[in-house]
Amino acid sequence: MAQPVNPPRGMRDFLPADKARREHALGIIRSVYRSHGFDEIETPVVEDYARLHAGLGGDNEKLSFSILKRGIRPEALAAAAEAGDAEQLADLGLRFDLTVPLTRFFASHRAELPPVFRSIQIAPVWRAERPQKGRYRQFVQADIDIIGEAGLLAEIELITATSQALAALGLDGCVIRVNDRRILFGLLAHCGFAPETHDRALITIDKLDKIGAVGVVEELRAIDGDAAERIGAVLAAVEPALGADGAGAGIPLTREAIAGVLPEGAAEDGVANLVALGEALDDGLPAGVAVRFDPTLVRGMGYYTGTIFEVAHPGSGSSVGGGGRYDGMVGRFLGQDVPAVGFSIGFERVVDLLTLPESTGPEAVALIADADVELADLLALKRALVDRGHRVRLEKRQKNMKTLLARIAGEGFARVANVRAGVRDADALEFRDLAD
Amino acid sequence: MAQPVNPPRGMRDFLPADKARREHALGIIRSVYRSHGFDEIETPVVEDYARLHAGLGGDNEKLSFSILKRGIRPEALAAAAEAGDAEQLADLGLRFDLTVPLTRFFASHRAELPPVFRSIQIAPVWRAERPQKGRYRQFVQADIDIIGEAGLLAEIELITATSQALAALGLDGCVIRVNDRRILFGLLAHCGFAPETHDRALITIDKLDKIGAVGVVEELRAIDGDAAERIGAVLAAVEPALGADGAGAGIPLTREAIAGVLPEGAAEDGVANLVALGEALDDGLPAGVAVRFDPTLVRGMGYYTGTIFEVAHPGSGSSVGGGGRYDGMVGRFLGQDVPAVGFSIGFERVVDLLTLPESTGPEAVALIADADVELADLLALKRALVDRGHRVRLEKRQKNMKTLLARIAGEGFARVANVRAGVRDADALEFRDLAD
Repeated sequence: MAQPVNPPRGMRDFLPADKARREHALGIIRSVYRSHGFDEIETPVVEDYARLHAGLGGDNEKLSFSILKRGIRPEALAAAAEAGDAEQLADLGLRFDLTVPLTRFFASHRAELPPVFRSIQIAPVWRAERPQKGRYRQFVQADIDIIGEAGLLAEIELITATSQALAALGLDGCVIRVNDRRILFGLLAHCGFAPETHDRALITIDKLDKIGAVGVVEELRAIDGDAAERIGAVLAAVEPALGADGAGAGIPLTREAIAGVLPEGAAEDGVANLVALGEALDDGLPAGVAVRFDPTLVRGMGYYTGTIFEVAHPGSGSSVGGGGRYDGMVGRFLGQDVPAVGFSIGFERVVDLLTLPESTGPEAVALIADADVELADLLALKRALVDRGHRVRLEKRQKNMKTLLARIAGEGFARVANVRAGVRDADALEFRDLAD
Repeated sequence: MAQPVNPPRGMRDFLPADKARREHALGIIRSVYRSHGFDEIETPVVEDYARLHAGLGGDNEKLSFSILKRGIRPEALAAAAEAGDAEQLADLGLRFDLTVPLTRFFASHRAELPPVFRSIQIAPVWRAERPQKGRYRQFVQADIDIIGEAGLLAEIELITATSQALAALGLDGCVIRVNDRRILFGLLAHCGFAPETHDRALITIDKLDKIGAVGVVEELRAIDGDAAERIGAVLAAVEPALGADGAGAGIPLTREAIAGVLPEGAAEDGVANLVALGEALDDGLPAGVAVRFDPTLVRGMGYYTGTIFEVAHPGSGSSVGGGGRYDGMVGRFLGQDVPAVGFSIGFERVVDLLTLPESTGPEAVALIADADVELADLLALKRALVDRGHRVRLEKRQKNMKTLLARIAGEGFARVANVRAGVRDADALEFRDLAD
């Protein structure tokens, strides 16, 4: 009586080849981030329900999976039914990002952490999205964050470390698009949008890649017709540099280039911030990674307060990473403001772009044993080869050797030797290559 | 308005030093298992509710965390309230072990896997246990399993790989206690227990380390007085070898030693199995790991069918690992029997016993920058040192340098250099040791 055997909807099993690919990528990211002075931490996969629904997660809060309280009493169940609210029965939930847990972690352990804390978190998050190609309900994020540093040094360390990680993964041609939320708000004010309409206007501008400049201006007219026209002129000025699909040469992070696309006097502090960032990064990025100003970059989350960034890669239709400064958020737990910036790599997209090197470890060899080989002898041979640094797979001789050899070659074993009864010395084995 | 900031009850945050220790241990275990020919896989942290409550998880099923269905309708909520059963509202749950997901995985992907599949799973599981010292609601298990091999070679590969992993972690003095479920059942039959009382009798014998031989015999009397006396005689014969607290010299896996403690003719196939295991392992274990027969070893899970084992370590009051053969279980999903054996390392206990080597990576250095150092210069210095293989931490000069230096030394940075304005060449930095 076989049962259905698929993983839960929208989630994935990883077979050995996939898992090896993922671990290889994780190892590279982890190692680059550590060398850049960041420290890895870990938090539980669940957080208190109230914390996950405190308004810090934007739309992701609605996508979170909730965990049933243990030992729910009949009265509580009846009350939830009465209110028509099953979520009353949850006390925990699976995290939907790594930022909410990080801020909670920092507030909890501040006394044990350095005043400027550089964290690495590489871990799965869960969102109940409608399953579709390339979008999963469990997926890994690789985040670095710097908490406690108000100055631009934080942005610089994040951008250089992330660039280096992407370069180490072999992702050539990455473009880091940068903007500043203060430029966005300055621009909106300059164009005449009333302050209370800014958030709504940003949601519209964020749709630029989907509905185009004409669509954006059209939608903004519903807020303010004149202001919509004025921002339309800015979008038109920017478009040649960005290119219709973001594939243009882009706008360098220099005062001249930025001034060339922004109305004069709009958002001076944001501009100064980006110019300083451009100067500091000028010589510090790995080959094949570029940083460009993009005044149309919004980033969805409402908690960003300053610099924001997003990584584009020619091989991926959507961004492979992003982040920004969120100075107000940690304070929600501490009752006191603490500056913070984060940069997250979209691990699933990066893994898809990755080319694995031919070999990632010690030479893998297979031993094919005749049926009458003593177990103790086989074990002694395996042990000797493992001690010499090999990865060793034991197989039994079978009728169809061709099938067997093809399979183990496919599993990454480079050489193979037959084992006959009585052989106990690894030097007596005759290995032959499987690759041919 | 600060909110409470602890992780959920019974779960833990890991600070950088803890996390590094854990990753170090994981790396060793993963590497040994790979070299022994095992392949790592990964499954989602959640499985379907029905699968987690199919009777394969024993008492752990009752401890599982359940996840609320998305979009529960009022009628479903009312029905659950009517029935007084909140669990009706769950469609998924967090896994409580790695064995149930593995069997589901194998059934799902059998066509893509080798006929004998050697899996590695190193991942967290969740159980809603009452939080207490050393017992957590989220904890990591490190499992290897061999599916598809009916012969003793499977047990041997598992035991040698696990022994080697424990030795590589520096855990000297491990004793692997081995038994066979067929010996247990043979012994019970031999002593006169009726077949339908065997499961109940095993639950009692499993309490030996808690209530002692006298307590066990006392409890077994409720089932069958004469049989209880007879098994009491066996326990008495075994006790000198095992020692009151399991610290005795133990019973070697030889025919003579086993025959010396078992009644004649009890469970011959189980005995033959262990004797063959002992012969094969005789020369194959790392120094400092011993294998011993323990006829009182039960292992809680009902699904075991043959060899069972458990690892004791002098530094830990409870076992640091265990496993056994569970030939019937995979068949539950496939509708066809498939042999399987697994060995699980209790990662949390092993981490507690671990001594970290002094250095686990490239030399870590800290740069302490004066306030007037250009960001671009600081970045160039960092980049040059990272390129040379260092782990680099940037710090700002502060009034109390003593505090600063003590902190970064505590964080594992070995050397430090001051950076003054204008310095851009890493060779011009003067490093000094922090250790003194």
